Amino acid sequence: MKQVTLTAGQIAEMVKGTIVGNPDRVVNSVAGIREAKEDQLSFIGNKRYEHQLETTGAGVILVCPDLASAANDKYTLIVTEHVDYAFAKVVALFAEEPPAFEPGVHPSAVVAADVKLGQGVSIGANAVVESGVEIGDGAVIGAGCYLGHRVKIGAGTILYPNVTVMYRCTIGRKCILHPGVVIGADGFGFVPGPQGLVKVPQTGVVQIDDDVELGANTTVDRARFGRTWIKSNVKVDDQVMIAHNVVIGESSILVAQCGIAGSAELGRGVVLGAKAGINGHITIGDGVQVAGTSGVVKSLPAGAIALGTPAESQREFMARHTLPSRFEKLQKKFEALKAEVEALKKNGEK
Amino acid sequence: MKQVTLTAGQIAEMVKGTIVGNPDRVVNSVAGIREAKEDQLSFIGNKRYEHQLETTGAGVILVCPDLASAANDKYTLIVTEHVDYAFAKVVALFAEEPPAFEPGVHPSAVVAADVKLGQGVSIGANAVVESGVEIGDGAVIGAGCYLGHRVKIGAGTILYPNVTVMYRCTIGRKCILHPGVVIGADGFGFVPGPQGLVKVPQTGVVQIDDDVELGANTTVDRARFGRTWIKSNVKVDDQVMIAHNVVIGESSILVAQCGIAGSAELGRGVVLGAKAGINGHITIGDGVQVAGTSGVVKSLPAGAIALGTPAESQREFMARHTLPSRFEKLQKKFEALKAEVEALKKNGEK
Amino acid sequence: MKQVTLTAGQIAEMVKGTIVGNPDRVVNSVAGIREAKEDQLSFIGNKRYEHQLETTGAGVILVCPDLASAANDKYTLIVTEHVDYAFAKVVALFAEEPPAFEPGVHPSAVVAADVKLGQGVSIGANAVVESGVEIGDGAVIGAGCYLGHRVKIGAGTILYPNVTVMYRCTIGRKCILHPGVVIGADGFGFVPGPQGLVKVPQTGVVQIDDDVELGANTTVDRARFGRTWIKSNVKVDDQVMIAHNVVIGESSILVAQCGIAGSAELGRGVVLGAKAGINGHITIGDGVQVAGTSGVVKSLPAGAIALGTPAESQREFMARHTLPSRFEKLQKKFEALKAEVEALKKNGEK
Repeated sequence: MKQVTLTAGQIAEMVKGTIVGNPDRVVNSVAGIREAKEDQLSFIGNKRYEHQLETTGAGVILVCPDLASAANDKYTLIVTEHVDYAFAKVVALFAEEPPAFEPGVHPSAVVAADVKLGQGVSIGANAVVESGVEIGDGAVIGAGCYLGHRVKIGAGTILYPNVTVMYRCTIGRKCILHPGVVIGADGFGFVPGPQGLVKVPQTGVVQIDDDVELGANTTVDRARFGRTWIKSNVKVDDQVMIAHNVVIGESSILVAQCGIAGSAELGRGVVLGAKAGINGHITIGDGVQVAGTSGVVKSLPAGAIALGTPAESQREFMARHTLPSRFEKLQKKFEALKAEVEALKKNGEK
Repeated sequence: MKQVTLTAGQIAEMVKGTIVGNPDRVVNSVAGIREAKEDQLSFIGNKRYEHQLETTGAGVILVCPDLASAANDKYTLIVTEHVDYAFAKVVALFAEEPPAFEPGVHPSAVVAADVKLGQGVSIGANAVVESGVEIGDGAVIGAGCYLGHRVKIGAGTILYPNVTVMYRCTIGRKCILHPGVVIGADGFGFVPGPQGLVKVPQTGVVQIDDDVELGANTTVDRARFGRTWIKSNVKVDDQVMIAHNVVIGESSILVAQCGIAGSAELGRGVVLGAKAGINGHITIGDGVQVAGTSGVVKSLPAGAIALGTPAESQREFMARHTLPSRFEKLQKKFEALKAEVEALKKNGEK
Repeated sequence: MKQVTLTAGQIAEMVKGTIVGNPDRVVNSVAGIREAKEDQLSFIGNKRYEHQLETTGAGVILVCPDLASAANDKYTLIVTEHVDYAFAKVVALFAEEPPAFEPGVHPSAVVAADVKLGQGVSIGANAVVESGVEIGDGAVIGAGCYLGHRVKIGAGTILYPNVTVMYRCTIGRKCILHPGVVIGADGFGFVPGPQGLVKVPQTGVVQIDDDVELGANTTVDRARFGRTWIKSNVKVDDQVMIAHNVVIGESSILVAQCGIAGSAELGRGVVLGAKAGINGHITIGDGVQVAGTSGVVKSLPAGAIALGTPAESQREFMARHTLPSRFEKLQKKFEALKAEVEALKKNGEK
C-alpha cells in the first residue's frame, strides 16, 4: 500500500475549502462515513446525511456548506461547494496506483503486419489485432482483446482485457472500455421471407467519440447502414445494450442494464436509470431523466422526467401510484352516501 | 469502399417491383430516409411514414403499394409488396463485404490432436479447441473462442471472436454466434442441504439447431439433465438469458435483454420483446407475442398477446392503464351525486 | 456415456428413503417426469404435480411423503422428506463426469515469473496471469482467463474459460466462476466538474468469500474505496450486475439478470428473483424475498417479501393488482345509486 499522510489544512488548500476545526489533524487514507476511523478522511455531500456526523469515527470530513455549523471536537470539517468533486480528487492522492501497462507488443499477441501503432502503445498478451487497424499514441489494448479489420482506436484510450471490437468500428481518444465489452456485433434485423426469417445485412459501423467510458459486458451493435453513434463524454455502466443505429448525445449517462432499441436518438445530457428501456425509432430530448426500470415507449421533449412502464410524467406516475389509497377513500365515501340515500328513501316511504 | 452503381430500373427488376418515375435514376449506396441524398437508395415500408417523402433527399425509394401515388419529380419510386425484404436484398449489393475468414488453423490456436475438422474450416488466432470436438465444413471459429470437449459445430456456422461453448454442447449448421456468447455454463440449481445450499449437478447439454443467431453476450445454460434446446431458425438478440432445460420453438424471436427461466417451453414463432421475462416451468403457445419489459408468470395459449407485469391481455392491460383517468371521472361524478343527495336532504328537511 | 445400473432399493438406501413397490426395479439414467421412461429415475417434490404420476413412464420415482399413497404397478416410489436434495445426490451417480482439468500450466499460457501456484493448479491454454498473483491448491484457471496483478484465487476454486479478474481482487475457496464473468471492473462513478463529467477513481477491490458461484457474464465492480463484498455461499445466476461497494450476506441467492446498485447492503439468505433491481445505498434485511422484475427503492426489514415497482408488500401489491376489477364493481354500484337518486328526485318533484 502507498503511504500518504496529509493534514486537514493541506487537503483544504487542494480543494479550495474552508477549515472548521483543527487544521493539523492528520489522515492517511479515505473511507465511507460509516466505516471511517480517526486517521481517515471521509465526506458528506448532502444535509440529508447530517445524522451520520454523530456516529462517524472519521478524523477529517469534507462537507457541503449547510453542514459547516456541525463543528465538533471529534473531527475537523473541510467545507466546500462541490463535495463529490473535491473528494474524487483527494481519493486519487491516497489510492494505490492501478498497475501500469508496459508499452510495447507482448510477444504472444497476434498483430497483423500492416497495423499502425502510435508511440507508447501497449498490446497485451494473447491480444489479436487484424489487418488495417490503427492505434493512437499511448493507447492500451488489454490481454485477450480482439480488434477486427481496419478498427481505429484513438490516442490514450484503454481497452481492458477481453474486449472485442469488430471490423471497421472506431473508438475515439481517452475512452475506457471495461472487460467483456463488445463493439460492432451485428444489429438485430430480420424480415419475413418466402422461406422464413431472412437476415438483414448490418453493413454499417459503430462510431464512439472521445472520453467515452463503457462498463463491463456492455454491447454496442453495428448499424444496419451508416453508424451507431456514441458522442463524446458519454458514460455507460455495465451490461448496457445499445442497438443498431442508435445515437447518444454528449455527456449522457446510461446506468447498468439499461437498453436502447434500434434507431432511437438521445440528446445531450440524458440520464437513463438502471434497467430503463428506450423504444426503437423515438427521440429523447436533451437533459431528459428516466427513472430506473422505466420503459419509455414514446418520444420525450427536452428536460422531461419519465417514470414507470409505459413511462409517464411524475404527476401521472404519482396519480397512478396513489390510486389504491384514493380508491379506498372513494369507496368509503360511496358507502356513506349510499347509506344516506337509503335513509332518504325510507323517509320518502313514510 | 466498394463502388457499385445501379439504376432504379435495375433495382426494380431485382426486387420484382414497379417503377414510378424515371427508371434511369442512378444510385451508388443506401441510407435511412432522413439522411439519404440524391445518389442514394432508401425505403419506406409503412404509410405511417409517408410524411418523410416530403423532406427526404433520396434519389430512389422502395415503397409499399399504398405509397405508389406519391410520385414526384425529386425521386423515383420502386413499389413492392415486401419493402423490408426487398431492401435487405439490395443493401447487400452496395455494402462492403465483411472481412473474409481465412480457411486453416491459425498457428497460435491450441487445437487438440483428435479434433475433426471439415473442409475449409477457419480457426482464428488464440482459439482453444479441446479434445473430441467436431467442426463441419466451412465453419468459422473466431479468435479467442473456446470449444470444450466433444463440442459439435455444424457446417457453415460462424462463431465470432471470444465465444465460449462448454463441453458436449452442439451447434447446428449455418448458425451465427456473436462475440461474448456463452453456451453451456451450468444451469442455476441449488437445494437446501444439511450444511447450507447444495449445488444440483447440471449434467445435460445445450442443443442448438440450424440457422440460429445469438447476439453478443447472450448466455444459454446447460440442462440439469437432457438438453436446453433452441430449435431451428430462432433469432436471439444481445444479452438474452436462456436458462436450463428451456425449449424454444422454430423461428421464435427473442429481443435484447429478455430472459427465460428454467424449463419454460416456447412454441413456434413466439416473439419476446426487449427485457421481457418468462417464468420457469410454463408453456408459451405458438405465435405468442409478449411486449417489451413484460413479466409472464402463467402459461399462455397459442396466439396470445401479453403485456405488463404480471402479463395480461391487451384488454386487461388497457383497463389497468386507463384506470387513473377513469377514476378521476368517477370521482367527479360521485361529488356531483353527493351534492344532489345533499340537495334532496335539504328539500326533505323543509 | 457412463453406464450405471441401480435398483430402487439401492437408491432408497442412499437417500434414506422408503420403498413403495418393487425394490428390484432397475434404472440406468435420470430424466424429467414428463420424458422419463421405464428404465429411468425421476422425481416429484410437490403434491401439486401429483397428476404427472398418471402419465409418466418413469420406472422409479422419488416423491415427497404426501405422495406415498400413490402406489401403482407401473412404477416404484421412493419416499423421502427432501426430494430435491436426494435427487441432486443421485443424479451425480448416473451423470457423465465433466471433463477433468489437467494439473499444470499449459505452454501457451502467459504466467508472470513471480506467481505463486499451489499444488495441482491447472492453468488453461492462452490464459494470462499477471505479476504477484497467488493461486491456491487445486484451483483451475480456464483457457483464455485473465488474472490481473496481485489477484488471489483460493484453493479448489474453478474459473471456467474467458473469465476476467482485475488487479488486487480476491476470490475465496471452492468458488465457481462461469465463462464471461468480470470481477473488478471500475465502479460507475462520475461527478460534474468544471469541464463536464469527471471520473471518480475506483480505488478499492472486490472480495469474494468461499463457496460462491457466479453465473455466465455476471459482473461485479470494484469498490470506490474499500471493497465490494460477496460473502460465503452466495449463489449468483447469469448476467447479474453487482455495483461498487455492495455487500451481499451469506447464502443469498441472486437469480438471472438482477442488479444491485452501489453501496446497497443485503443480509443473509436474501433471495432476489430474476430481473429484480435494488436501489443504491439501501439495506435489505436477512431473509428478504424479492419477486422477479421488482424494483426495490427503499430499505426492507428482515423477512420482508416485496413485489412490484416500486416494490410493495404482498398485501399492497394485491390491492393494486385487483384495482381494475374492484373499480368496475364500484362503478356499477355508483350507477345503480345514481339511478336511485334520480328516482328520489322524481318522487320529490311529484
